[in-house]
Amino acid sequence: MTPAELKALVRTIPDFPKTGIQFRDITTLIGHGEGFAATVEWLGERVAGASAIAGMEARGFIFGAAVAARLGLPFLPIRKPGKLPCDTIGVDYELEYGLDRLEMDPSAVTNGQPVAIVDDLLATGGTASAATKLLRQAGAEVALAAFVIDLPDLGGGNLLRANGVEVHALMEFEGD
Amino acid sequence: MTPAELKALVRTIPDFPKTGIQFRDITTLIGHGEGFAATVEWLGERVAGASAIAGMEARGFIFGAAVAARLGLPFLPIRKPGKLPCDTIGVDYELEYGLDRLEMDPSAVTNGQPVAIVDDLLATGGTASAATKLLRQAGAEVALAAFVIDLPDLGGGNLLRANGVEVHALMEFEGD
Repeated sequence: MTPAELKALVRTIPDFPKTGIQFRDITTLIGHGEGFAATVEWLGERVAGASAIAGMEARGFIFGAAVAARLGLPFLPIRKPGKLPCDTIGVDYELEYGLDRLEMDPSAVTNGQPVAIVDDLLATGGTASAATKLLRQAGAEVALAAFVIDLPDLGGGNLLRANGVEVHALMEFEGD
Repeated sequence: MTPAELKALVRTIPDFPKTGIQFRDITTLIGHGEGFAATVEWLGERVAGASAIAGMEARGFIFGAAVAARLGLPFLPIRKPGKLPCDTIGVDYELEYGLDRLEMDPSAVTNGQPVAIVDDLLATGGTASAATKLLRQAGAEVALAAFVIDLPDLGGGNLLRANGVEVHALMEFEGD
């Protein structure tokens, strides 16, 4: 399937989670067997140089884990606070309103290990930048990130590239 | 890799989330590339008769999505309240303390569609039974469920089988 065909499988829901936001809903893409497999294949080709895949709770688990299993690579879950049962390291980051936090198991990466980030959506890049910082704190090299959707008007791609991360996105929605 | 080798990749963390609980931690299993891929392959073989895979937020997304992508099948996320942007149906169910709720997009399945549940852990079966009820409410046929870990002493397998679901588990931990 072509990127244009895959883009047509994304459903747009107006005014979610609040008025004025056009929510790009990937559940209709992953709900299409061939479309989901093609998406995972595309993402996997972009991050094949890494030796582990990291994904952020919860939608990032859907694509990140599928890519990791396809490539035979470890999957490293980056979670919300208090979810991991082991010793963790964490990073706080700013959202539009207030703070959020990501945590990971620092023993899940070795020093200098090339880890790629896979996620569903790149918007402002706040979450992906926080994940990059966290992974680097654990010793990983983070040089690659692959997203299903990029909203380029929100600047996340530039933010990640300024942090030394090569960014790939299967599709873009402009004007968001 | 054999089931015994895969079982050896699961880390046990004592007293999480509370004293007396032996937490069976799958992050070390998914953190082993070959082990994760072998686990997904095993699960996929057990649910190959279904035409869609459902998984429950958040750890269930890791295995369910990877199995769906491997088989080229749709992945149907079953989520916590308020997470899905579309119209949803939901089911409330009892936890040890208090109530919880699962939601899904009813338009994600067609009437009579065979949907299999994939999850990391089968304990009392409360969550998997609630997911079964919810999927059936949407019109799906739920006859198959595959788990990485079963804790047979907690009775989840019997509960699901009594509800007409064939249960597969890659490994068991007894005495939990």
